[in-house]
Amino acid sequence: MSILVVGTVALDTIQTPFGRVRNALGGSAAYSAVSASFFSKVKLVSIAGKDFPQQFISFFQSRDIDTKGLQIKKGRTFRWSGSYTYELNSAQTLKTELNLLSHFNPTLAGDYQNEKFVFLANINPRIQLEVLKQLKGTRLVVSDTMNYWIEHEKETLKRVIKRSDIFILNDSEARELTCESNLIKAARALLALGPRLVIVKKGEYGCSLFSRTFSFYVPAYLLENVLDPTGAGDTFAGGFLGYLAARPKITESALKKAVALGTIMSSYVVEDFSLERLRKLNKRDIRVRFKDFQRMTNFK
Amino acid sequence: MSILVVGTVALDTIQTPFGRVRNALGGSAAYSAVSASFFSKVKLVSIAGKDFPQQFISFFQSRDIDTKGLQIKKGRTFRWSGSYTYELNSAQTLKTELNLLSHFNPTLAGDYQNEKFVFLANINPRIQLEVLKQLKGTRLVVSDTMNYWIEHEKETLKRVIKRSDIFILNDSEARELTCESNLIKAARALLALGPRLVIVKKGEYGCSLFSRTFSFYVPAYLLENVLDPTGAGDTFAGGFLGYLAARPKITESALKKAVALGTIMSSYVVEDFSLERLRKLNKRDIRVRFKDFQRMTNFK
Repeated sequence: MSILVVGTVALDTIQTPFGRVRNALGGSAAYSAVSASFFSKVKLVSIAGKDFPQQFISFFQSRDIDTKGLQIKKGRTFRWSGSYTYELNSAQTLKTELNLLSHFNPTLAGDYQNEKFVFLANINPRIQLEVLKQLKGTRLVVSDTMNYWIEHEKETLKRVIKRSDIFILNDSEARELTCESNLIKAARALLALGPRLVIVKKGEYGCSLFSRTFSFYVPAYLLENVLDPTGAGDTFAGGFLGYLAARPKITESALKKAVALGTIMSSYVVEDFSLERLRKLNKRDIRVRFKDFQRMTNFK
Repeated sequence: MSILVVGTVALDTIQTPFGRVRNALGGSAAYSAVSASFFSKVKLVSIAGKDFPQQFISFFQSRDIDTKGLQIKKGRTFRWSGSYTYELNSAQTLKTELNLLSHFNPTLAGDYQNEKFVFLANINPRIQLEVLKQLKGTRLVVSDTMNYWIEHEKETLKRVIKRSDIFILNDSEARELTCESNLIKAARALLALGPRLVIVKKGEYGCSLFSRTFSFYVPAYLLENVLDPTGAGDTFAGGFLGYLAARPKITESALKKAVALGTIMSSYVVEDFSLERLRKLNKRDIRVRFKDFQRMTNFK
């Protein structure tokens, strides 16, 4: 099965205690599409300007990502600039230039509207809602967001959550959106909004998946050297949905493995800046670390 | 097999957002001995004053804990008073009265010196070292500490660590003791001091076990209602060693199950003040939550 990924592509300028990159490939759709491409065929829907390097598009294509839905318009690509201290869990945004993103109005091509698996990566929930309206016969919609939209587009975001099967957010966002400090209570409040599953990411502490009938927790895959945490959550989501879309059936067991594989994908992406680590990654690396992660977390 | 537990018994006064107790049963040895007693026979070595309620001693005995090593002296029992905010991960100490604890000099009875499994719960490392010197033919020494001893008795503490098979501490203590912010590097530095295994506790985020050949992480068992986190780490350690001591052999698999059971024991103790929840606990409760925890964390 293939998956449709809608979100941002960006030119990121990132500073961490371990280095700096300028105008590197970034954006929620870029990270999640590349991550998902290790498991499923991916169709990317986003917008970029004439300044978006051809080599980034070639990279997507080298991962067999269909870029027909990547609109290239006259103007500048969305740019984000952020920095991290040694406490790598959260970025400080230095500058956000929406540029072409502020006029993004994705019109899905006919065959895109029939995609069975859709990931609405972090982007304005108004855009997410526009995409949802165009979908026909989708089996599974996964959506993600960020604190900015909770603060500025809460009601639209709630409509997106209502129409999503799986909603992904981080722990502080879950607390902010539900006004519940306890994560189990926050997850229950989110499930009450409509989705079948909620995934709460906790950065270096792993993530939790909540359904109405079970819950599942994985720690993060501990690393000695994290260079750049940007995109870890998007990469998680891409690996998660990419794996699920390749399953014949979405069972509890498949969901758990999908969470574990999403965790593995994000453990790789943070080992280098931007998407550099994913360029060199192969399926064998994923299998090796997955086995290792199983040994690190399972008990009898 | 039985285990020897050396540490403090205390009268605790605790305030959390959910209530308050005065002169309740507390202390590192109290929590760990009671927790271990669900898996192994326990011999308790500690000191208390004439003000230590007989009902607390009866409670130990009801758990089949041998209290011959609990010295009752003229004077006042060690008292600790602390409070927690809604962020329940760390206590603010309001008052510490060492009282009789400042003169505690444990002399182990002959049969106690031959115990195969020993837990040196959090107490002055000078006392831990005195106990270590008296042991003959011990198979496994597990020790624990707290930030105060890292700051005030670092060299003595290092000698304790060197002579321990398993050393337990929390993540901030691991960082403080080793001056390494990364937990894998901190664990490696701790293993270099001598122990075969290091367990790093991360409060509500679970814990990690590190050996020279493998590592293992469990998340915490998420709870909707935590009333009082006091003693969670001691309870973890008690369950961990109590289970191990009952195994014919200490394998990687047994160590992992021991970590999981320690986690389950600590998830119970925080559901009520002091040791109240453990009073009502039975082996079936432990089995049920253990199975649940397995379903929550294992994946194929």
